[in-house]
Amino acid sequence: MGATLTLAKYVHSAGFCDLPAPVVHEAKRSLLNWMGVTIGASRHETVEIALRVTASMGGHPQAVIFGRSERADICQAAFVNGTGSHVFDFDDTHLDTIIHPTGPVAPAVFALAERDAHTGQELLLAFILGVEIECRIGNAVFPSHYDAGWHITSTAGVFGAAAAAARMLDCDSARVAQALGLAATQASGLREMFGTMAKPFHVGRAAQSGLFAALLAAEGFTSSMAGIEAPRGFANVLAAEHDLARLTSGLGEDFAILRNAYKPFACGIVIHPSIDGCLQLRERHGFRPEQIESVELRVNPYVLELTGKPEPQRGLEGKFSIFHSSAVALIDGAAGEEQYSDERVGDPDVIALRARIRATADPAVPAESAHVAITLRTGERNEIHIASALGSLARPMTDADLEGKFRTLVEPVLGPAGTSHLCARLWHIDELEDVRDLVRTAVPGAQPSPLQRP
Amino acid sequence: MGATLTLAKYVHSAGFCDLPAPVVHEAKRSLLNWMGVTIGASRHETVEIALRVTASMGGHPQAVIFGRSERADICQAAFVNGTGSHVFDFDDTHLDTIIHPTGPVAPAVFALAERDAHTGQELLLAFILGVEIECRIGNAVFPSHYDAGWHITSTAGVFGAAAAAARMLDCDSARVAQALGLAATQASGLREMFGTMAKPFHVGRAAQSGLFAALLAAEGFTSSMAGIEAPRGFANVLAAEHDLARLTSGLGEDFAILRNAYKPFACGIVIHPSIDGCLQLRERHGFRPEQIESVELRVNPYVLELTGKPEPQRGLEGKFSIFHSSAVALIDGAAGEEQYSDERVGDPDVIALRARIRATADPAVPAESAHVAITLRTGERNEIHIASALGSLARPMTDADLEGKFRTLVEPVLGPAGTSHLCARLWHIDELEDVRDLVRTAVPGAQPSPLQRP
Repeated sequence: MGATLTLAKYVHSAGFCDLPAPVVHEAKRSLLNWMGVTIGASRHETVEIALRVTASMGGHPQAVIFGRSERADICQAAFVNGTGSHVFDFDDTHLDTIIHPTGPVAPAVFALAERDAHTGQELLLAFILGVEIECRIGNAVFPSHYDAGWHITSTAGVFGAAAAAARMLDCDSARVAQALGLAATQASGLREMFGTMAKPFHVGRAAQSGLFAALLAAEGFTSSMAGIEAPRGFANVLAAEHDLARLTSGLGEDFAILRNAYKPFACGIVIHPSIDGCLQLRERHGFRPEQIESVELRVNPYVLELTGKPEPQRGLEGKFSIFHSSAVALIDGAAGEEQYSDERVGDPDVIALRARIRATADPAVPAESAHVAITLRTGERNEIHIASALGSLARPMTDADLEGKFRTLVEPVLGPAGTSHLCARLWHIDELEDVRDLVRTAVPGAQPSPLQRP
Repeated sequence: MGATLTLAKYVHSAGFCDLPAPVVHEAKRSLLNWMGVTIGASRHETVEIALRVTASMGGHPQAVIFGRSERADICQAAFVNGTGSHVFDFDDTHLDTIIHPTGPVAPAVFALAERDAHTGQELLLAFILGVEIECRIGNAVFPSHYDAGWHITSTAGVFGAAAAAARMLDCDSARVAQALGLAATQASGLREMFGTMAKPFHVGRAAQSGLFAALLAAEGFTSSMAGIEAPRGFANVLAAEHDLARLTSGLGEDFAILRNAYKPFACGIVIHPSIDGCLQLRERHGFRPEQIESVELRVNPYVLELTGKPEPQRGLEGKFSIFHSSAVALIDGAAGEEQYSDERVGDPDVIALRARIRATADPAVPAESAHVAITLRTGERNEIHIASALGSLARPMTDADLEGKFRTLVEPVLGPAGTSHLCARLWHIDELEDVRDLVRTAVPGAQPSPLQRP
């Protein structure tokens, strides 16, 4: 039996009771983090345009746009919510593949849950299965696929959305496989687009394309039953090297979501060790930006390949500049969404400090580490070695950290009471008889009601 | 200036009066052929499912589904009409690249023309520009891109749809370039899907994705300005070898649409020389199928790579089987849509004759040629050499041939009067003040009205 069909059978047959408790808890953490960044970005220009264009075409008001009053059809909602969730580049990361796993999957399952009144356990199961499929596909083709220029979050993510949606639609194994085939043949997204609105667009399109694949397959639309492993299937066409054994090895026992990580900083994750180092040195030594003569960063070569942009022009580009990120961390003592506005990227003080930062590629430094050395104009030199940044698997954000991040992002949109209410609903999503009881509270003006437990 | 921006400037600035008359006439031939196959396939199961799924999401009734009473929003209509147009694999072919150029572009421009009341000249210009862009991109990456496993009709087609739609939306050069970037990052479609509903799906999705790209870019959504030629752009990521000079060489002087060809037979174009040979031998010698001892086909190796399927199981697969196609040509004296039903593919007489057909790969035979030899049970042997099949550039279908094909496909849906009316409108589309005067007659039950000329 081929890998596509093996995965399809698993997606069809896995049960919620088969999921270990830590897997369910990690899924809640992923959804909490995802909902926070999605609602936080819900007023961003990228979302405004996406919503304006989709709304111009109408569509049944089947699903919410999180953080907003508008509704849309399920495919439009999956697109807009998926796009919005990655606008800040502040979502979760499967560190083995640099996939942002929740973005393509969650919008699809929430939209279907809202349309069809699913339970929280049904949504959680489908979500976990979707993340599992996309990360396994990512594992099979990483790194050659990513190195070639593919944005793996969308190319692998479309499979996750298709798998999760097919499960929500109660497809049999053959139809799940057809959905995966339709996902394979929609896989797209180029790294050339990084730094533009097209990067978050990839996530929204992956969510929408995967959902669309499942909707079609559920109605009998045909594709290949071996879309992943066939000679002209996804792996062979989109990856120079791949290991198809990783698609199915340990299936149902090892769960990819346990290797998911959450960002304390609103930028490319490979910059996080450097930011962490800058923040710790700033905290420890209390210097002011104008006292800094030079900053030396020593990082893995990969970090510079991804984020070596010395002079970003826009906020989105700043998220992929180790120079901008380190500069704002040293000036503002933070690297949240505020530090990545167009204004902040163009600020003269930030630009001036950016120019005094040097970054050196060193293959001996792991990607999750960084050496940071800051020399003051006085000649004083302070150094720090970050073995693992905050937010890594070795130093994960706690549940309380994630709640704090959620509040910071959501309160400006839903207010303190609404934010608390939604947060509680998310931690208890597995107890919901109808996910709409949660979804309805994820938009402005919702009337909080007592949490109903079954 | 990069190739993407050069193409964008051309798309923005070209005028209808710059188009040579033969180019305009070939565009009409392309649209006539396309409309015929689209309406002809409008009751196919593939279209039924596509329409059922999109209709379940609602959408403003902005545009027709050709040949049907339903309407849909412009992106849904582009998807369904694009998918329908390639269901029979009977649409046009840009022979240099094996792109089916009209499929991804026409649905996008018709949908926008209907929504925004464009003139026929505006539609024709946008359509010609879209075809130009997609074929130039195809020329630049063919054959390595196709050989790698990409379905070039969708991967290049999405650019054509984006360019044409951006022109219809009156985008400036920068926004056309952004639309091309959004097209680049949605380019997808695997040859693994050939023989399933996912193959025509590619065409519909390319039309929809390209239109969506233009709608977003027109509203200021950003992407790369060098989506085609950048180091991690379309050409480098999706083609091992490419010739970027072909993107812009002779732009505005050489028109790709003049190298467009139309199929007299409802199957993969590389089979046409063999079918032509079988039909001519059958006509000339008048033998019956049961008299045939063996059939020997000598063809280019490429032909067998694409269509060497000896035992197709379904109608769609039959379209990519040189054995099935030659067998039905010899039995039925035809290779129209009827010859590619599931029933015909499973017919015992067809299967029996298929088994007596041998095909030999010969690199000395060009792809547009075939040698056909038929040995009867009497020992009599008849041979023919087809240098260029009917429908090739050397032996093009005449306008009358195309009208005949159109009538055969459309009359069962619109009836003889409606078919004549629509046919006349298409030949005179450049005289229409409002393309809706044509579109409204392309659905059942339309009341034919006298052709209004400006």
